[in-house]
Amino acid sequence: MKIGIVGLGLIGGSLGLDLRSQGHEILGVSRQERTCQIAIARGAVDDASLELALLADTDLIFVCTPIAHIPSTIAALIPKISPATVLTDVGSVKASIVNDITPLWQNFVGGHPMAGTAESGIEAALHGLFAGNPYVLTPTDATPKAAISLLESILRPLQVKLHYCRPEDHDRAVAWISHLPVMASASLIAACNSDQAISELAQTLASSGFRDTSRVGGGNPELGVMMAQYNTSEVVRSLRSYRTQLDALLHLIEHENWADLEAFLKATHQTRPNYLKP
Amino acid sequence: MKIGIVGLGLIGGSLGLDLRSQGHEILGVSRQERTCQIAIARGAVDDASLELALLADTDLIFVCTPIAHIPSTIAALIPKISPATVLTDVGSVKASIVNDITPLWQNFVGGHPMAGTAESGIEAALHGLFAGNPYVLTPTDATPKAAISLLESILRPLQVKLHYCRPEDHDRAVAWISHLPVMASASLIAACNSDQAISELAQTLASSGFRDTSRVGGGNPELGVMMAQYNTSEVVRSLRSYRTQLDALLHLIEHENWADLEAFLKATHQTRPNYLKP
Repeated sequence: MKIGIVGLGLIGGSLGLDLRSQGHEILGVSRQERTCQIAIARGAVDDASLELALLADTDLIFVCTPIAHIPSTIAALIPKISPATVLTDVGSVKASIVNDITPLWQNFVGGHPMAGTAESGIEAALHGLFAGNPYVLTPTDATPKAAISLLESILRPLQVKLHYCRPEDHDRAVAWISHLPVMASASLIAACNSDQAISELAQTLASSGFRDTSRVGGGNPELGVMMAQYNTSEVVRSLRSYRTQLDALLHLIEHENWADLEAFLKATHQTRPNYLKP
Repeated sequence: MKIGIVGLGLIGGSLGLDLRSQGHEILGVSRQERTCQIAIARGAVDDASLELALLADTDLIFVCTPIAHIPSTIAALIPKISPATVLTDVGSVKASIVNDITPLWQNFVGGHPMAGTAESGIEAALHGLFAGNPYVLTPTDATPKAAISLLESILRPLQVKLHYCRPEDHDRAVAWISHLPVMASASLIAACNSDQAISELAQTLASSGFRDTSRVGGGNPELGVMMAQYNTSEVVRSLRSYRTQLDALLHLIEHENWADLEAFLKATHQTRPNYLKP
């Protein structure tokens, strides 16, 4: 099949590597000539261009730009492609994108591959990045079944774990397990604001507990802003629920209620494995 | 040297393994006969007993019981040992212990090896557990220099990184980097309390971000209670500071102040590496 990819970063580049090794013809578009050259050299695309016109003749296009550019990219694609072309995106927030695109293009299926690394850019693209990881599709009642089937047929050979849900449910779920952790973790780093001597001692003594809990809060600032910006109401909802739990826990400690604190911590100990299913 | 260890769990057992391999004679005391047998069989001790009297003739004793039992263990040891014996403990909170023990025993040096695994008990004891990790000593102005020197001479060959600070400074620093992360992480797990369908979706989609941020909050509940119970004022202080940061971040998101949110997340991105020094 002839497949287009707009945005040749970690996700777009990795999709290209995997899909080309499945025998598809992959055409890539990037805003940077250098990225096009690297994508060709790495074998992520058969051909690449700065111009969306390269994708005129494709059957399926993955839009892998940052979330902010997905609607404008699709608006620019529309005059150049056939109505039969299936469009999909890889944005990590779905409701706003699906709401924006659905009136513009019938053959659109929202998607979110739940995979990544600490790195970004075409240089970081990896074979097999998606294998074994969830890939969420968020079709609506109006999405043509044939468009969903075509996308599934392309993704299944990458050994992704396909999940289906409403865009709003996706955004609520990822607020809990992806966006809230970033905010909670960033607040942890910001809270360690003691005087100089204690801060230096804390930095010297910090080990795996602090390292793991602070990891996502010390990540890419632009990604954190994007989560809050495109999933505002769900991020706010999850942060308020989090603060309620934190206040309850602080109240237990202030009142030296060790029995209820133990019950609280036993519940979290028992609940966490539900989030770690293989 | 003849060295005693009271409490043959992960820390006591691992100290025994390392110190015996340095040629010391190690005598262990546990409350359970089965633990004594396993400690002998694993080579963590030369001999072991249920009775503290076994340690009558030792030069140095590591008290490796849970924090709650450290003062009572030392009170029970005192009638059985010579005044020259140096006592040390491995409790993860220091001010309350040092304040309790200092009036009872002059040759006492508070200690805290910053090492561990997810496992516990004598079966989990490991050779080399402490190598390369911080080991904090919290002597007071009244602590005899000879007692500190003796403990240092025993610990240095284990290749620990020795640090020295006041017990109160230790407790404030570990509240930030060890106890607060547990409370922040447990609150994260507790906050994911959406309806059944969303919870199941969240559990299915959770990946490394949630896994890392929730790890210490899903750990041993008794350990979490112990941190709050023995370091109450510092844990409360750090939680209040944390809540202030969280409220500031929530306010930025509620008011869609993306520029200041980005500045907040850039600061945490820049600060975190200070806590990850090799």
